[in-house]
Amino acid sequence: MSETGAPLGLPLPLSGATRLFAIIGDPIEQAGSPGLFNQAFRKHGIPAVLVPMQVPPSAVPGAIALFRQSANWDGLVVTVPHKVAVCALVDELAPAARLTGAVNAIRKESDGRLVGDNYDGAGFIEGLRQHGHALQGRHVLMVGAGGAGRAIAHAIAAEGAASITLVDRDGERARQLAEAVGQVHPKVAVSARRQGDEDTQRHDVIVNCAPPDGDKLPVDLSAVRSGTLVVDIVLKPAWTPLLAAAGARGLPTHAGVHMLSGQVDALLGFFGLSP
Amino acid sequence: MSETGAPLGLPLPLSGATRLFAIIGDPIEQAGSPGLFNQAFRKHGIPAVLVPMQVPPSAVPGAIALFRQSANWDGLVVTVPHKVAVCALVDELAPAARLTGAVNAIRKESDGRLVGDNYDGAGFIEGLRQHGHALQGRHVLMVGAGGAGRAIAHAIAAEGAASITLVDRDGERARQLAEAVGQVHPKVAVSARRQGDEDTQRHDVIVNCAPPDGDKLPVDLSAVRSGTLVVDIVLKPAWTPLLAAAGARGLPTHAGVHMLSGQVDALLGFFGLSP
Repeated sequence: MSETGAPLGLPLPLSGATRLFAIIGDPIEQAGSPGLFNQAFRKHGIPAVLVPMQVPPSAVPGAIALFRQSANWDGLVVTVPHKVAVCALVDELAPAARLTGAVNAIRKESDGRLVGDNYDGAGFIEGLRQHGHALQGRHVLMVGAGGAGRAIAHAIAAEGAASITLVDRDGERARQLAEAVGQVHPKVAVSARRQGDEDTQRHDVIVNCAPPDGDKLPVDLSAVRSGTLVVDIVLKPAWTPLLAAAGARGLPTHAGVHMLSGQVDALLGFFGLSP
Repeated sequence: MSETGAPLGLPLPLSGATRLFAIIGDPIEQAGSPGLFNQAFRKHGIPAVLVPMQVPPSAVPGAIALFRQSANWDGLVVTVPHKVAVCALVDELAPAARLTGAVNAIRKESDGRLVGDNYDGAGFIEGLRQHGHALQGRHVLMVGAGGAGRAIAHAIAAEGAASITLVDRDGERARQLAEAVGQVHPKVAVSARRQGDEDTQRHDVIVNCAPPDGDKLPVDLSAVRSGTLVVDIVLKPAWTPLLAAAGARGLPTHAGVHMLSGQVDALLGFFGLSP
Protein backbone atom coordinates (compact mmCIF):
# COMPACT_ATOMS: atom_id res chain seq x y z
CA MET A 1 0.00 0.00 0.00
CA SER A 2 1.12 3.52 -0.66
CA GLU A 3 0.76 6.77 1.21
CA THR A 4 -2.50 7.50 -0.63
CA GLY A 5 -4.20 4.26 0.38
CA ALA A 6 -4.36 2.83 -3.16
CA PRO A 7 -2.10 -0.17 -3.82
CA LEU A 8 0.85 1.00 -5.92
CA GLY A 9 0.34 0.01 -9.55
CA LEU A 10 -3.28 -1.09 -9.33
CA PRO A 11 -5.52 0.48 -12.02
CA LEU A 12 -9.30 0.28 -12.18
CA PRO A 13 -10.56 -2.96 -13.76
CA LEU A 14 -9.83 -2.94 -17.50
CA SER A 15 -12.37 -3.29 -20.30
CA GLY A 16 -12.38 -2.63 -24.03
CA ALA A 17 -13.22 0.99 -23.23
CA THR A 18 -10.14 1.59 -21.04
CA ARG A 19 -7.95 4.45 -22.30
CA LEU A 20 -4.34 3.50 -23.01
CA PHE A 21 -1.09 5.11 -21.86
CA ALA A 22 2.40 3.63 -22.13
CA ILE A 23 5.90 4.37 -20.98
CA ILE A 24 8.52 3.60 -23.64
CA GLY A 25 12.18 2.99 -22.80
CA ASP A 26 14.93 0.41 -23.19
CA PRO A 27 15.28 -1.32 -20.74
CA ILE A 28 11.90 -0.81 -19.11
CA GLU A 29 11.66 -3.02 -16.01
CA GLN A 30 13.15 -0.26 -13.81
CA ALA A 31 10.37 2.18 -14.74
CA GLY A 32 8.43 3.61 -11.80
CA SER A 33 5.62 5.19 -13.83
CA PRO A 34 3.42 2.05 -14.09
CA GLY A 35 3.35 1.85 -10.30
CA LEU A 36 2.65 5.54 -9.74
CA PHE A 37 0.26 6.28 -12.62
CA ASN A 38 -1.99 3.25 -12.19
CA GLN A 39 -2.27 4.05 -8.50
CA ALA A 40 -3.27 7.61 -9.42
CA PHE A 41 -5.77 6.40 -12.06
CA ARG A 42 -7.45 4.20 -9.45
CA LYS A 43 -7.35 6.86 -6.75
CA HIS A 44 -9.02 9.43 -9.02
CA GLY A 45 -11.41 7.00 -10.76
CA ILE A 46 -9.82 7.52 -14.19
CA PRO A 47 -10.65 4.56 -16.52
CA ALA A 48 -7.13 4.31 -17.95
CA VAL A 49 -4.06 2.12 -17.70
CA LEU A 50 -0.36 2.91 -18.17
CA VAL A 51 1.73 -0.05 -19.33
CA PRO A 52 5.49 -0.56 -19.66
CA MET A 53 6.55 -1.04 -23.31
CA GLN A 54 10.16 -1.89 -24.04
CA VAL A 55 11.06 -0.17 -27.32
CA PRO A 56 14.59 -0.32 -28.76
CA PRO A 57 15.91 2.86 -30.41
CA SER A 58 15.31 1.52 -33.92
CA ALA A 59 11.61 1.02 -33.15
CA VAL A 60 10.89 4.45 -31.65
CA PRO A 61 9.62 6.04 -34.90
CA GLY A 62 7.30 3.05 -35.38
CA ALA A 63 6.02 3.33 -31.81
CA ILE A 64 5.25 7.03 -32.24
CA ALA A 65 3.53 6.29 -35.56
CA LEU A 66 1.33 3.60 -33.98
CA PHE A 67 0.53 5.87 -31.04
CA ARG A 68 -0.55 8.54 -33.55
CA GLN A 69 -2.90 6.15 -35.32
CA SER A 70 -4.41 4.38 -32.30
CA ALA A 71 -7.61 6.15 -31.30
CA ASN A 72 -7.77 4.91 -27.68
CA TRP A 73 -4.06 5.52 -26.96
CA ASP A 74 -3.97 8.95 -25.36
CA GLY A 75 -0.46 9.51 -24.07
CA LEU A 76 3.15 8.43 -23.77
CA VAL A 77 5.71 8.78 -21.03
CA VAL A 78 9.23 8.61 -22.47
CA THR A 79 12.28 7.41 -20.59
CA VAL A 80 15.93 6.57 -21.20
CA PRO A 81 17.32 6.47 -23.89
CA HIS A 82 14.57 8.01 -26.03
CA LYS A 83 14.01 11.46 -24.49
CA VAL A 84 16.11 13.33 -27.05
CA ALA A 85 15.20 11.24 -30.10
CA VAL A 86 11.43 11.75 -29.74
CA CYS A 87 11.82 15.54 -29.99
CA ALA A 88 12.03 15.18 -33.77
CA LEU A 89 8.96 12.92 -33.91
CA VAL A 90 6.31 15.17 -32.33
CA ASP A 91 4.47 18.10 -33.92
CA GLU A 92 5.04 20.65 -31.18
CA LEU A 93 7.45 21.11 -28.28
CA ALA A 94 6.27 22.84 -25.10
CA PRO A 95 8.74 25.40 -23.61
CA ALA A 96 10.42 23.01 -21.13
CA ALA A 97 10.99 20.48 -23.90
CA ARG A 98 12.41 23.13 -26.25
CA LEU A 99 14.69 24.47 -23.54
CA THR A 100 16.07 21.08 -22.58
CA GLY A 101 16.00 19.40 -25.98
CA ALA A 102 14.37 16.41 -24.29
CA VAL A 103 10.79 15.13 -24.02
CA ASN A 104 9.47 12.89 -21.27
CA ALA A 105 5.75 13.07 -22.03
CA ILE A 106 3.69 13.24 -25.24
CA ARG A 107 -0.02 13.87 -25.45
CA LYS A 108 -2.38 13.70 -28.40
CA GLU A 109 -4.48 16.79 -29.05
CA SER A 110 -8.10 16.49 -30.20
CA ASP A 111 -6.93 17.27 -33.76
CA GLY A 112 -4.36 14.46 -33.59
CA ARG A 113 -1.24 16.62 -33.20
CA LEU A 114 1.40 15.34 -30.78
CA VAL A 115 2.76 17.73 -28.16
CA GLY A 116 5.95 16.89 -26.28
CA ASP A 117 6.79 18.35 -22.89
CA ASN A 118 9.32 17.70 -20.15
CA TYR A 119 8.38 17.39 -16.49
CA ASP A 120 11.64 15.85 -15.27
CA GLY A 121 12.97 19.16 -14.01
CA ALA A 122 9.72 20.23 -12.36
CA GLY A 123 9.30 16.76 -10.85
CA PHE A 124 12.87 16.74 -9.54
CA ILE A 125 12.40 20.09 -7.80
CA GLU A 126 8.97 19.11 -6.45
CA GLY A 127 10.34 15.81 -5.10
CA LEU A 128 13.12 17.69 -3.25
CA ARG A 129 10.63 20.27 -1.97
CA GLN A 130 8.31 17.55 -0.62
CA HIS A 131 11.26 16.21 1.39
CA GLY A 132 12.34 19.58 2.74
CA HIS A 133 15.33 20.20 0.47
CA ALA A 134 15.82 23.67 -1.09
CA LEU A 135 18.41 24.56 -3.76
CA GLN A 136 18.51 28.35 -3.53
CA GLY A 137 22.08 29.57 -2.97
CA ARG A 138 23.47 26.02 -2.98
CA HIS A 139 26.53 24.77 -4.84
CA VAL A 140 25.47 21.79 -6.92
CA LEU A 141 27.59 19.12 -8.60
CA MET A 142 25.77 17.23 -11.35
CA VAL A 143 26.95 14.04 -13.06
CA GLY A 144 25.28 13.21 -16.36
CA ALA A 145 24.28 15.64 -19.13
CA GLY A 146 21.87 13.38 -21.05
CA GLY A 147 18.12 13.91 -21.47
CA ALA A 148 17.19 13.88 -17.78
CA GLY A 149 20.38 15.78 -16.86
CA ARG A 150 19.51 18.61 -19.23
CA ALA A 151 16.03 19.05 -17.77
CA ILE A 152 17.34 18.90 -14.20
CA ALA A 153 20.25 21.30 -14.79
CA HIS A 154 17.88 23.95 -16.16
CA ALA A 155 15.46 23.40 -13.25
CA ILE A 156 18.23 23.66 -10.64
CA ALA A 157 19.41 26.92 -12.21
CA ALA A 158 15.84 28.23 -12.27
CA GLU A 159 15.58 27.47 -8.53
CA GLY A 160 18.42 29.93 -7.90
CA ALA A 161 21.35 27.66 -7.12
CA ALA A 162 24.60 29.63 -6.55
CA SER A 163 26.60 27.38 -8.86
CA ILE A 164 26.30 24.23 -10.93
CA THR A 165 29.29 22.11 -11.89
CA LEU A 166 28.54 19.67 -14.73
CA VAL A 167 30.39 16.43 -15.39
CA ASP A 168 29.77 13.80 -18.06
CA ARG A 169 31.69 10.89 -19.55
CA ASP A 170 31.29 12.87 -22.75
CA GLY A 171 33.08 16.08 -21.80
CA GLU A 172 31.79 17.99 -24.82
CA ARG A 173 28.21 17.19 -23.85
CA ALA A 174 28.81 18.61 -20.35
CA ARG A 175 30.42 21.74 -21.85
CA GLN A 176 27.48 22.33 -24.21
CA LEU A 177 24.93 21.92 -21.43
CA ALA A 178 26.86 24.31 -19.15
CA GLU A 179 26.87 26.90 -21.91
CA ALA A 180 23.14 26.46 -22.60
CA VAL A 181 22.14 26.73 -18.94
CA GLY A 182 24.45 29.69 -18.39
CA GLN A 183 22.87 31.57 -21.27
CA VAL A 184 19.36 31.17 -19.85
CA HIS A 185 20.43 31.80 -16.23
CA PRO A 186 23.31 34.33 -16.28
CA LYS A 187 23.22 34.77 -12.49
CA VAL A 188 24.12 31.13 -11.86
CA ALA A 189 27.79 30.17 -12.12
CA VAL A 190 27.61 27.18 -14.47
CA SER A 191 30.73 25.32 -15.48
CA ALA A 192 31.83 21.96 -16.87
CA ARG A 193 34.65 19.93 -15.34
CA ARG A 194 36.54 16.88 -16.49
CA GLN A 195 35.15 13.67 -14.94
CA GLY A 196 37.35 12.68 -11.98
CA ASP A 197 38.31 16.32 -11.41
CA GLU A 198 35.06 17.43 -9.74
CA ASP A 199 36.43 18.97 -6.53
CA THR A 200 33.57 17.42 -4.55
CA GLN A 201 34.52 19.31 -1.41
CA ARG A 202 33.20 22.59 -2.81
CA HIS A 203 29.59 21.38 -3.18
CA ASP A 204 26.48 21.25 -0.96
CA VAL A 205 24.46 18.96 -3.20
CA ILE A 206 25.58 16.13 -5.49
CA VAL A 207 23.10 14.93 -8.12
CA ASN A 208 23.67 11.84 -10.24
CA CYS A 209 21.78 11.79 -13.56
CA ALA A 210 24.08 9.27 -15.28
CA PRO A 211 22.94 5.71 -15.98
CA PRO A 212 24.56 2.91 -13.93
CA ASP A 213 28.07 1.94 -15.09
CA GLY A 214 28.68 -1.49 -13.58
CA ASP A 215 29.96 -1.24 -10.02
CA LYS A 216 31.66 2.08 -10.64
CA LEU A 217 30.26 4.97 -8.58
CA PRO A 218 29.43 8.05 -10.67
CA VAL A 219 31.33 10.23 -8.20
CA ASP A 220 33.97 9.65 -5.51
CA LEU A 221 32.47 10.59 -2.13
CA SER A 222 35.68 10.26 -0.09
CA ALA A 223 36.34 14.03 0.10
CA VAL A 224 32.72 15.17 0.44
CA ARG A 225 31.90 17.47 3.37
CA SER A 226 29.51 16.18 6.02
CA GLY A 227 25.96 17.37 5.41
CA THR A 228 26.31 17.23 1.62
CA LEU A 229 23.00 16.00 0.15
CA VAL A 230 23.47 13.08 -2.26
CA VAL A 231 20.73 12.61 -4.86
CA ASP A 232 20.50 9.76 -7.39
CA ILE A 233 17.77 9.74 -10.05
CA VAL A 234 18.52 6.10 -10.96
CA LEU A 235 15.42 4.05 -10.11
CA LYS A 236 16.70 0.51 -9.91
CA PRO A 237 17.85 -0.50 -7.44
CA ALA A 238 15.94 2.12 -5.43
CA TRP A 239 18.86 2.11 -2.97
CA THR A 240 21.62 2.63 -5.54
CA PRO A 241 25.35 1.98 -4.88
CA LEU A 242 25.86 5.77 -4.74
CA LEU A 243 23.09 6.24 -2.16
CA ALA A 244 24.46 3.26 -0.20
CA ALA A 245 27.94 4.80 -0.19
CA ALA A 246 26.50 8.14 0.93
CA GLY A 247 24.44 6.48 3.64
CA ALA A 248 27.52 4.62 4.87
CA ARG A 249 29.29 7.99 5.26
CA GLY A 250 26.32 9.42 7.16
CA LEU A 251 25.34 11.80 4.38
CA PRO A 252 21.68 12.74 3.73
CA THR A 253 20.26 11.00 0.63
CA HIS A 254 17.35 11.46 -1.77
CA ALA A 255 16.21 8.64 -4.11
CA GLY A 256 15.08 8.73 -7.74
CA VAL A 257 11.48 7.76 -7.12
CA HIS A 258 10.78 11.17 -5.57
CA MET A 259 11.36 12.81 -8.96
CA LEU A 260 8.62 10.62 -10.41
CA SER A 261 6.10 10.99 -7.61
CA GLY A 262 6.78 14.73 -7.75
CA GLN A 263 5.57 14.92 -11.33
CA VAL A 264 2.62 12.49 -11.47
CA ASP A 265 -0.04 15.10 -10.66
CA ALA A 266 1.52 17.56 -13.12
CA LEU A 267 1.55 14.87 -15.83
CA LEU A 268 -2.10 13.99 -15.20
CA GLY A 269 -2.83 17.65 -15.88
CA PHE A 270 -0.71 17.60 -19.04
CA PHE A 271 -2.69 14.58 -20.26
CA GLY A 272 -5.98 16.37 -19.57
CA LEU A 273 -6.83 14.02 -16.69
CA SER A 274 -6.66 16.46 -13.79
CA PRO A 275 -8.88 15.19 -10.99
CA MET B 1 -17.31 -9.71 -9.32
CA SER B 2 -17.16 -12.73 -11.58
CA GLU B 3 -17.85 -16.41 -11.07
CA THR B 4 -14.20 -17.00 -10.10
CA GLY B 5 -14.17 -14.43 -7.32
CA ALA B 6 -11.71 -12.05 -9.04
CA PRO B 7 -13.21 -8.72 -10.18
CA LEU B 8 -13.58 -8.85 -13.96
CA GLY B 9 -10.75 -6.91 -15.64
CA LEU B 10 -8.57 -6.40 -12.58
CA PRO B 11 -4.90 -7.37 -13.15
CA LEU B 12 -2.21 -7.64 -10.53
CA PRO B 13 -0.62 -4.26 -9.68
CA LEU B 14 1.55 -3.07 -12.58
CA SER B 15 5.24 -2.23 -12.46
CA GLY B 16 7.99 -1.77 -15.04
CA ALA B 17 8.46 -5.54 -15.00
CA THR B 18 4.85 -6.36 -15.96
CA ARG B 19 4.60 -8.41 -19.18
CA LEU B 20 2.49 -6.82 -21.91
CA PHE B 21 -0.37 -8.28 -23.96
CA ALA B 22 -2.77 -6.35 -26.18
CA ILE B 23 -5.93 -6.95 -28.15
CA ILE B 24 -5.95 -5.10 -31.47
CA GLY B 25 -9.16 -4.30 -33.35
CA ASP B 26 -11.12 -1.39 -34.80
CA PRO B 27 -13.31 -0.42 -33.00
CA ILE B 28 -12.07 -1.84 -29.70
CA GLU B 29 -14.39 -0.71 -26.90
CA GLN B 30 -16.62 -3.76 -27.35
CA ALA B 31 -13.73 -6.16 -26.70
CA GLY B 32 -14.29 -8.61 -23.87
CA SER B 33 -10.70 -9.87 -23.63
CA PRO B 34 -9.40 -7.10 -21.31
CA GLY B 35 -12.06 -8.05 -18.78
CA LEU B 36 -11.51 -11.81 -19.02
CA PHE B 37 -7.71 -11.95 -19.37
CA ASN B 38 -6.85 -9.50 -16.60
CA GLN B 39 -9.18 -11.38 -14.28
CA ALA B 40 -7.38 -14.61 -15.22
CA PHE B 41 -3.93 -13.01 -14.76
CA ARG B 42 -4.91 -11.92 -11.26
CA LYS B 43 -6.55 -15.23 -10.40
CA HIS B 44 -3.45 -17.19 -11.42
CA GLY B 45 -0.88 -14.68 -10.10
CA ILE B 46 0.53 -13.95 -13.58
CA PRO B 47 2.37 -10.58 -13.60
CA ALA B 48 0.93 -9.46 -16.94
CA VAL B 49 -1.65 -7.06 -18.31
CA LEU B 50 -3.78 -7.19 -21.47
CA VAL B 51 -4.78 -3.79 -22.83
CA PRO B 52 -7.21 -2.72 -25.57
CA MET B 53 -5.41 -1.06 -28.49
CA GLN B 54 -7.49 0.43 -31.28
CA VAL B 55 -5.57 -0.11 -34.51
CA PRO B 56 -7.01 0.91 -37.89
CA PRO B 57 -6.35 -1.45 -40.82
CA SER B 58 -3.61 0.79 -42.25
CA ALA B 59 -1.65 0.56 -38.98
CA VAL B 60 -1.78 -3.22 -38.53
CA PRO B 61 1.62 -3.92 -40.17
CA GLY B 62 3.17 -1.25 -37.94
CA ALA B 63 1.55 -2.73 -34.83
CA ILE B 64 2.87 -6.21 -35.66
CA ALA B 65 6.34 -4.74 -36.34
CA LEU B 66 6.38 -2.95 -32.96
CA PHE B 67 5.12 -6.08 -31.19
CA ARG B 68 8.00 -7.99 -32.83
CA GLN B 69 10.60 -5.51 -31.56
CA SER B 70 9.25 -4.93 -28.05
CA ALA B 71 10.97 -7.32 -25.65
CA ASN B 72 8.35 -7.22 -22.88
CA TRP B 73 5.35 -7.54 -25.22
CA ASP B 74 4.59 -11.25 -25.29
CA GLY B 75 1.33 -11.71 -27.12
CA LEU B 76 -1.52 -10.31 -29.17
CA VAL B 77 -5.19 -11.13 -29.35
CA VAL B 78 -6.62 -10.09 -32.71
CA THR B 79 -10.22 -9.15 -33.31
CA VAL B 80 -12.44 -7.71 -36.05
CA PRO B 81 -11.49 -6.60 -38.73
CA HIS B 82 -7.86 -7.79 -38.60
CA LYS B 83 -8.12 -11.57 -38.24
CA VAL B 84 -7.52 -12.32 -41.92
CA ALA B 85 -4.98 -9.55 -42.60
CA VAL B 86 -2.56 -10.62 -39.86
CA CYS B 87 -2.16 -14.09 -41.40
CA ALA B 88 0.33 -12.58 -43.86
CA LEU B 89 2.26 -10.81 -41.09
CA VAL B 90 3.26 -13.75 -38.87
CA ASP B 91 6.04 -16.26 -39.46
CA GLU B 92 4.05 -19.42 -38.86
CA LEU B 93 0.37 -20.40 -38.86
CA ALA B 94 -0.85 -23.13 -36.51
CA PRO B 95 -3.26 -25.67 -38.07
CA ALA B 96 -6.50 -23.95 -36.98
CA ALA B 97 -5.26 -20.65 -38.41
CA ARG B 98 -4.23 -22.29 -41.70
CA LEU B 99 -7.55 -24.08 -41.97
CA THR B 100 -9.64 -20.99 -41.35
CA GLY B 101 -7.40 -18.39 -42.97
CA ALA B 102 -7.85 -16.27 -39.83
CA VAL B 103 -5.75 -15.61 -36.75
CA ASN B 104 -7.08 -14.49 -33.39
CA ALA B 105 -3.94 -14.89 -31.28
CA ILE B 106 -0.22 -14.35 -31.93
CA ARG B 107 2.59 -15.36 -29.61
CA LYS B 108 6.29 -14.62 -29.77
CA GLU B 109 8.60 -17.64 -29.61
CA SER B 110 11.89 -17.47 -27.70
CA ASP B 111 13.71 -16.99 -31.03
CA GLY B 112 11.43 -14.06 -31.91
CA ARG B 113 9.29 -15.82 -34.51
CA LEU B 114 5.58 -14.97 -34.45
CA VAL B 115 3.09 -17.85 -34.44
CA GLY B 116 -0.57 -17.21 -35.25
CA ASP B 117 -3.35 -19.50 -34.14
CA ASN B 118 -7.13 -19.38 -33.99
CA TYR B 119 -9.12 -20.29 -30.90
CA ASP B 120 -12.45 -18.78 -31.99
CA GLY B 121 -13.81 -22.13 -33.10
CA ALA B 122 -12.60 -24.03 -30.05
CA GLY B 123 -13.84 -21.25 -27.76
CA PHE B 124 -17.23 -21.19 -29.46
CA ILE B 125 -17.69 -24.94 -29.01
CA GLU B 126 -16.40 -24.84 -25.41
CA GLY B 127 -18.76 -21.96 -24.54
CA LEU B 128 -21.73 -23.94 -25.89
CA ARG B 129 -20.59 -27.08 -24.07
CA GLN B 130 -20.29 -25.21 -20.77
CA HIS B 131 -23.93 -24.20 -21.19
CA GLY B 132 -25.20 -27.66 -22.09
CA HIS B 133 -25.56 -27.19 -25.85
CA ALA B 134 -24.33 -29.92 -28.22
CA LEU B 135 -24.11 -29.63 -32.02
CA GLN B 136 -23.84 -33.27 -33.09
CA GLY B 137 -26.53 -34.13 -35.61
CA ARG B 138 -27.97 -30.61 -35.57
CA HIS B 139 -28.93 -28.49 -38.55
CA VAL B 140 -27.13 -25.17 -38.22
CA LEU B 141 -27.76 -21.87 -40.00
CA MET B 142 -24.80 -19.50 -39.90
CA VAL B 143 -24.84 -15.82 -40.89
CA GLY B 144 -21.44 -14.23 -41.57
CA ALA B 145 -18.48 -15.84 -43.34
CA GLY B 146 -15.73 -13.43 -42.17
CA GLY B 147 -12.78 -14.28 -39.93
CA ALA B 148 -14.78 -15.47 -36.93
CA GLY B 149 -17.37 -17.12 -39.16
CA ARG B 150 -14.69 -19.18 -40.89
CA ALA B 151 -13.28 -20.50 -37.64
CA ILE B 152 -16.72 -21.27 -36.24
CA ALA B 153 -18.00 -22.99 -39.39
CA HIS B 154 -15.04 -25.37 -39.37
CA ALA B 155 -15.49 -26.04 -35.64
CA ILE B 156 -19.23 -26.73 -36.02
CA ALA B 157 -18.49 -29.18 -38.82
CA ALA B 158 -15.80 -30.85 -36.72
CA GLU B 159 -18.38 -31.30 -33.93
CA GLY B 160 -20.46 -33.45 -36.27
CA ALA B 161 -23.34 -31.16 -37.18
CA ALA B 162 -25.71 -32.80 -39.70
CA SER B 163 -25.77 -29.73 -41.93
CA ILE B 164 -24.52 -26.16 -42.10
CA THR B 165 -26.19 -23.48 -44.20
CA LEU B 166 -23.99 -20.42 -44.75
CA VAL B 167 -25.24 -16.93 -45.52
CA ASP B 168 -23.26 -13.71 -46.00
CA ARG B 169 -23.91 -10.27 -47.44
CA ASP B 170 -21.10 -11.24 -49.79
CA GLY B 171 -22.60 -14.32 -51.42
CA GLU B 172 -19.31 -15.37 -52.99
CA ARG B 173 -17.63 -15.36 -49.59
CA ALA B 174 -20.34 -17.68 -48.22
CA ARG B 175 -19.97 -19.98 -51.23
CA GLN B 176 -16.18 -20.20 -50.83
CA LEU B 177 -16.44 -20.98 -47.13
CA ALA B 178 -19.07 -23.66 -47.76
CA GLU B 179 -16.77 -25.29 -50.30
CA ALA B 180 -13.76 -25.14 -47.95
CA VAL B 181 -15.62 -26.62 -44.99
CA GLY B 182 -17.23 -29.29 -47.18
CA GLN B 183 -13.83 -30.39 -48.46
CA VAL B 184 -12.46 -30.90 -44.93
CA HIS B 185 -15.69 -32.44 -43.58
CA PRO B 186 -17.29 -34.45 -46.41
CA LYS B 187 -19.88 -36.04 -44.06
CA VAL B 188 -21.43 -32.67 -43.22
CA ALA B 189 -23.91 -31.21 -45.70
CA VAL B 190 -22.52 -27.70 -46.16
CA SER B 191 -24.22 -25.25 -48.47
CA ALA B 192 -24.43 -21.52 -49.13
CA ARG B 193 -27.73 -19.68 -49.55
CA ARG B 194 -28.62 -16.22 -50.72
CA GLN B 195 -29.20 -13.86 -47.80
CA GLY B 196 -32.97 -13.55 -47.21
CA ASP B 197 -33.54 -17.04 -48.60
CA GLU B 198 -32.31 -18.99 -45.56
CA ASP B 199 -35.34 -21.24 -44.93
CA THR B 200 -34.97 -20.75 -41.18
CA GLN B 201 -37.61 -23.36 -40.42
CA ARG B 202 -35.25 -26.20 -41.35
CA HIS B 203 -32.66 -25.38 -38.64
CA ASP B 204 -32.13 -26.33 -34.98
CA VAL B 205 -29.44 -23.75 -34.29
CA ILE B 206 -28.97 -20.24 -35.71
CA VAL B 207 -25.54 -18.63 -35.26
CA ASN B 208 -24.85 -15.00 -36.09
CA CYS B 209 -21.21 -14.19 -36.85
CA ALA B 210 -21.91 -10.99 -38.82
CA PRO B 211 -21.11 -7.55 -37.41
CA PRO B 212 -24.06 -5.32 -36.42
CA ASP B 213 -25.79 -3.61 -39.35
CA GLY B 214 -27.75 -0.76 -37.80
CA ASP B 215 -31.12 -1.92 -36.52
CA LYS B 216 -31.42 -4.66 -39.13
CA LEU B 217 -31.51 -8.17 -37.66
CA PRO B 218 -29.04 -10.55 -39.33
CA VAL B 219 -31.81 -13.12 -39.77
CA ASP B 220 -35.61 -13.05 -39.76
CA LEU B 221 -36.86 -15.15 -36.82
CA SER B 222 -40.54 -15.06 -37.72
CA ALA B 223 -40.63 -18.58 -39.18
CA VAL B 224 -38.22 -20.21 -36.74
CA ARG B 225 -39.40 -23.40 -34.95
CA SER B 226 -39.83 -23.26 -31.19
CA GLY B 227 -36.79 -24.65 -29.41
CA THR B 228 -34.35 -23.32 -32.02
CA LEU B 229 -31.19 -22.14 -30.24
CA VAL B 230 -30.20 -18.60 -31.25
CA VAL B 231 -26.52 -17.71 -30.82
CA ASP B 232 -24.96 -14.29 -31.41
CA ILE B 233 -21.20 -13.80 -31.18
CA VAL B 234 -21.57 -9.99 -31.18
CA LEU B 235 -20.30 -8.69 -27.83
CA LYS B 236 -21.80 -5.24 -27.57
CA PRO B 237 -24.48 -4.89 -26.49
CA ALA B 238 -24.24 -8.22 -24.65
CA TRP B 239 -27.99 -8.59 -25.15
CA THR B 240 -28.03 -7.96 -28.90
CA PRO B 241 -31.14 -7.09 -30.93
CA LEU B 242 -31.09 -10.64 -32.34
CA LEU B 243 -30.96 -12.21 -28.87
CA ALA B 244 -33.68 -9.83 -27.71
CA ALA B 245 -35.89 -10.84 -30.65
CA ALA B 246 -35.23 -14.51 -29.90
CA GLY B 247 -35.96 -14.03 -26.21
CA ALA B 248 -39.21 -12.25 -27.09
CA ARG B 249 -40.24 -15.32 -29.09
CA GLY B 250 -39.38 -17.64 -26.19
CA LEU B 251 -36.38 -19.17 -27.98
CA PRO B 252 -33.27 -20.33 -26.07
CA THR B 253 -30.33 -17.91 -26.50
CA HIS B 254 -26.54 -17.99 -26.11
CA ALA B 255 -24.48 -14.76 -25.94
CA GLY B 256 -21.12 -13.89 -27.48
CA VAL B 257 -19.20 -13.61 -24.24
CA HIS B 258 -19.38 -17.39 -23.77
CA MET B 259 -17.13 -17.84 -26.83
CA LEU B 260 -14.49 -15.66 -25.17
CA SER B 261 -14.70 -17.16 -21.71
CA GLY B 262 -14.58 -20.60 -23.38
CA GLN B 263 -11.17 -19.83 -24.87
CA VAL B 264 -9.35 -17.86 -22.17
CA ASP B 265 -7.77 -20.92 -20.53
CA ALA B 266 -6.77 -22.31 -23.93
CA LEU B 267 -5.20 -18.96 -24.88
CA LEU B 268 -3.25 -18.78 -21.61
CA GLY B 269 -1.78 -22.14 -22.61
CA PHE B 270 -1.01 -20.87 -26.14
CA PHE B 271 0.83 -17.91 -24.61
CA GLY B 272 2.84 -20.24 -22.37
CA LEU B 273 1.09 -18.98 -19.23
CA SER B 274 -0.77 -22.12 -18.23
CA PRO B 275 -1.39 -22.05 -14.49
